[in-house]
Amino acid sequence: MDELHISLAHGNGGRFMRELIEDIFVRHLGKSDLDTQADAVPIALGGGEAMITTDGFTVQPLEFPGGNIGSLAVHGTVNDLAVAGACPKYLTLNAFIEEGLEIAVLDRLVASLAAAAREAAVKVSAGDTKVLRRGEGGGLYLATTGVGVRLPGPRLAMQNIRDGDRLLVTGSVGDHGTAIMLAREEFGLRGDILSDAAPVAQLAKTLLQFDGLRFMRDPTRGGLASVAHELVRGTGFGVRLNSAIPVKEPVRAVCDMLGYDPLYLACEGRVVAVIDSAQADAAIAACRDLPAGADTAIIGEVSAREQRVILETELGGERFLEELEDDPLPRIC
Amino acid sequence: MDELHISLAHGNGGRFMRELIEDIFVRHLGKSDLDTQADAVPIALGGGEAMITTDGFTVQPLEFPGGNIGSLAVHGTVNDLAVAGACPKYLTLNAFIEEGLEIAVLDRLVASLAAAAREAAVKVSAGDTKVLRRGEGGGLYLATTGVGVRLPGPRLAMQNIRDGDRLLVTGSVGDHGTAIMLAREEFGLRGDILSDAAPVAQLAKTLLQFDGLRFMRDPTRGGLASVAHELVRGTGFGVRLNSAIPVKEPVRAVCDMLGYDPLYLACEGRVVAVIDSAQADAAIAACRDLPAGADTAIIGEVSAREQRVILETELGGERFLEELEDDPLPRIC
Repeated sequence: MDELHISLAHGNGGRFMRELIEDIFVRHLGKSDLDTQADAVPIALGGGEAMITTDGFTVQPLEFPGGNIGSLAVHGTVNDLAVAGACPKYLTLNAFIEEGLEIAVLDRLVASLAAAAREAAVKVSAGDTKVLRRGEGGGLYLATTGVGVRLPGPRLAMQNIRDGDRLLVTGSVGDHGTAIMLAREEFGLRGDILSDAAPVAQLAKTLLQFDGLRFMRDPTRGGLASVAHELVRGTGFGVRLNSAIPVKEPVRAVCDMLGYDPLYLACEGRVVAVIDSAQADAAIAACRDLPAGADTAIIGEVSAREQRVILETELGGERFLEELEDDPLPRIC
Repeated sequence: MDELHISLAHGNGGRFMRELIEDIFVRHLGKSDLDTQADAVPIALGGGEAMITTDGFTVQPLEFPGGNIGSLAVHGTVNDLAVAGACPKYLTLNAFIEEGLEIAVLDRLVASLAAAAREAAVKVSAGDTKVLRRGEGGGLYLATTGVGVRLPGPRLAMQNIRDGDRLLVTGSVGDHGTAIMLAREEFGLRGDILSDAAPVAQLAKTLLQFDGLRFMRDPTRGGLASVAHELVRGTGFGVRLNSAIPVKEPVRAVCDMLGYDPLYLACEGRVVAVIDSAQADAAIAACRDLPAGADTAIIGEVSAREQRVILETELGGERFLEELEDDPLPRIC
């Protein structure tokens, strides 16, 4: 073993593992938050209703325009809490590190994770590291579990959705998926498309002020189209999407060239919300007041007519959006 | 893709992923507990003090005598809560599944995980699956995060440990590590040694009745010797281990043959406890009353004399136990 790369001895419970945890994880995440002497640590929830979620991260490459697996592992999980109506408070972190990973890369990724956690005001309160044999780990996999406290506001559930409710999205779709695709270089394309990965807590909190809000989701794997399919399955209604769905021009161009549909590509910093039609315009205005929500748009409605996902085209045509089957793009998150 | 093995399409957020989650994870873990429609789910903690822990699992082979990665992913995490003085209530589950894994194997492992969760009375309340490209995943990696509620009893912390306190262990050491080693077949040895993987909640609860209990830990990676080193680092005292440490005869024989020291091999169903010397005998008697604690023994004491880990041999000699450096056995948990 050398001192610049991860070795199997970093995973054995002995001195190298302890030093790795202290030199990288504790240094970035803060000794006060991360108690490395305890098997389990107390979390204070202030008597609120606790909510929990978990997510795994396998994105390749580990660093991409607009983010990396470290910051993504925070955003992905705090966003799942936010769209469920909770304020994120605590994270736990699992790192599966491949033998041979440069320690400088790990250090950079954990620093970025720590910065994202501070920005999202969550504490990383427990963690675990495992080292995987060379060739078995893709560099790094992360898993994060988030605990939060439910915010005041309407109870969110697909069952509350009604015929005629509106769908909105808080920004352009497909940026994250397209940025990852370009970062892989396998297509020989270079671009300046950035991942949209970011916390959505402010957007979610703003939407929760509307008592007509029925449901929120962040459209990650499978993209907006897969959220629409979930809504159809969960409500028994159909979803009609319109041609106002925001897609950035370079994203559309790359997707056209490579034969991808941005509606099926992952976002990591957007909220899809279903809201009473009477409050939709006010909700859009409120979201647009936030920097992260400047491009918020009504993108469709819930309809009892057909139990399908339908895209209305600009020229007045209609096409069915099928459920995703083959993987368009593996290891995107 | 065929229907018997995991494909990348099982990880894409579309139909195959949904069917995999419903057919395997929801079927075994219970629809009522695992809400697949929500991004985050509420957990009821009854006003108690919440505690959290997390652990990753990469054991190879996935199935071994006495357990498998599914049951281990429950035991490992609920045991971390138990030795921290908490009653385990909820788990979250991350599965990183390698493309090509037989679906029948995954089904068996998740069934075993579900059975272990029922036995430990914990609910698996949130989960996530990712699919890793063939050759990158070692079949399956799991991560579990556990949330529990602190039990009545003394506050446990290394800082409470005093000179003269006794160490006890609730059963033989090194069984898990040795069972995994033999299951790998790379040594050409066959044996009937079973992993000791099991929940320790009953043992921990029994020990918590003693107000002289200072600290508990389950000696997993790095084994008993690494727990002793942690105690030395955490307290500034030394630890003197005696020759009464229970090691099963076949474990000792295999370790002698292969040059391993069972004191450095993982257990997955034992508790090491530090307790006031005045209560040590009563605590042993209480543990021995439980089936899981029949072999409980006093194995040493905390000593202000030398700030080291010392093993007293049967013949009255002494040797220093060094901190683990090289990995004796990777992917043991």
